[in-house]
Amino acid sequence: MYSVINRVRPAHRALAFALRFNANTEGSSCVVTDGRRLSPGVSADVDPLRATSRRFCSRTALTQGLLFRQMFELESSTYTYLLADTQTKEAVIIDPVLETIDRDLKFIQQLGLKLKVAVNTHCHADHITSTGLMKKRLVGLKSAISKFSGASADIHLSEGDKITFGKQYLTVRETPGHTDGCVTLVLGDQSMAFTGDALLIRGCGRTDFQQGCAKTLYQSVHQKIFTLPDECLIYPAHDYLGQTVSTVGEESKFNPRLTKSLEEFVGIMNNLNLPKPKKIDISVPANLVCGVHEV
Amino acid sequence: MYSVINRVRPAHRALAFALRFNANTEGSSCVVTDGRRLSPGVSADVDPLRATSRRFCSRTALTQGLLFRQMFELESSTYTYLLADTQTKEAVIIDPVLETIDRDLKFIQQLGLKLKVAVNTHCHADHITSTGLMKKRLVGLKSAISKFSGASADIHLSEGDKITFGKQYLTVRETPGHTDGCVTLVLGDQSMAFTGDALLIRGCGRTDFQQGCAKTLYQSVHQKIFTLPDECLIYPAHDYLGQTVSTVGEESKFNPRLTKSLEEFVGIMNNLNLPKPKKIDISVPANLVCGVHEV
Repeated sequence: MYSVINRVRPAHRALAFALRFNANTEGSSCVVTDGRRLSPGVSADVDPLRATSRRFCSRTALTQGLLFRQMFELESSTYTYLLADTQTKEAVIIDPVLETIDRDLKFIQQLGLKLKVAVNTHCHADHITSTGLMKKRLVGLKSAISKFSGASADIHLSEGDKITFGKQYLTVRETPGHTDGCVTLVLGDQSMAFTGDALLIRGCGRTDFQQGCAKTLYQSVHQKIFTLPDECLIYPAHDYLGQTVSTVGEESKFNPRLTKSLEEFVGIMNNLNLPKPKKIDISVPANLVCGVHEV
Repeated sequence: MYSVINRVRPAHRALAFALRFNANTEGSSCVVTDGRRLSPGVSADVDPLRATSRRFCSRTALTQGLLFRQMFELESSTYTYLLADTQTKEAVIIDPVLETIDRDLKFIQQLGLKLKVAVNTHCHADHITSTGLMKKRLVGLKSAISKFSGASADIHLSEGDKITFGKQYLTVRETPGHTDGCVTLVLGDQSMAFTGDALLIRGCGRTDFQQGCAKTLYQSVHQKIFTLPDECLIYPAHDYLGQTVSTVGEESKFNPRLTKSLEEFVGIMNNLNLPKPKKIDISVPANLVCGVHEV
């Protein structure tokens, strides 16, 4: 196991297993085994404005020495995130896209960052990751993805794993439902969560292909994301309306799908009747081998 | 004059006049009248990484009680910014776009904000502002734009004016060159600057239409933006490469145009040979009347 990953505590692994098991069981609902962490997250008394900003300001202050940059890929509407420790300059990139590899590497080079890990929140169906090509260009870079993704990578992630860069780290929360191998990456101080396609701003990922399961997704979001602090910033893998960020407080109050009951949510997701993603037939095979597919 | 605007100190107004005067004079260059504030901003010893993050974190902490949200309009690649005081819920929107008015108003309504001012950084040539239509939908909303823009508005802005919302405020710095009426809006603690089309990420606005003048733009950026703290975040009106933010430190070190000499910069800008903006013939007339043009 690569040294940036710290293994999960047994209790967390049991919790992850329970979630996965329950998600695949008929008749299961949100299992409340720990009142604080696992109770469904819709809290009626959240003031989203205070959640968005006042606590954000104070929380950001706690993340001393963090560089953070959000970047956008226009064709697939994908957000790529770069995080670095400003002292050691060790960095992590989340969901980098093949089309924007030159932009991303130029920025990394300009700021003198040492990119340690390129992590994908899941095996994407709408674009090809630049992870594989980036590994060819940056000596020592490791790729990472969920062990449930079915994709090859240097590091296979599990619930509770930590991806460290300098004094900073991201903790893995397994959030299946869009795919089996979806993870949410939570910054050490819980001020930011990178939710991939599990939770989008006022939306969520599809559940009609690649092992998608609406019930599993609902449980993942409520048990693993909505249990984060209200002021935690939500940074998704995509947005199609020009929105850049949200908060747990906002989504647990205003998300039009995930504020519904489990049954209503499943009904909504199973009746979206969306067209097949345009690039799925080339993206998924490529992403299963780290994006290096006839590159 | 609307109450949210506090008038400029005489010394600042004289400075603005000097800048404008020099910009329109043959043979002028960067006039250093104040060593600290006005020396051209390329500083060789800036560590852009530290500028980007370490100081950003501490500065953000000072902006207590600020809500901040960046939003994107895909067709014109325009960034709209929403800032609010989390206690009073008074808010300001910068460069709102007609196509995204419903998204913006829905978000404002969800968070219970009281939008006081819609300010445009200049009279845009590439999209129609939603300011006029927004005024029709929100009682009491005031529009604001530079007095040099030639556009009608409730508030005509001058150098040093303050746009207040709750305990927060934005200070106006006149940064002509892309147009005569371009302003940069600087948050009270100088942790953020909204540069419009004067300074883009690793670029700048065009100077070949609408009173554009490369020499004036160069002086504006060096004297009014690069003199801000290195850690000040740069939020431009546009980005075409998926970049969302930069810093004064980064741009003064890596901007491929504005790190050049004045003469080189003018040469670059006068030889871009760009096509006429597609929407200029409908956008400029509409924006001169607050965007309400046969709406």
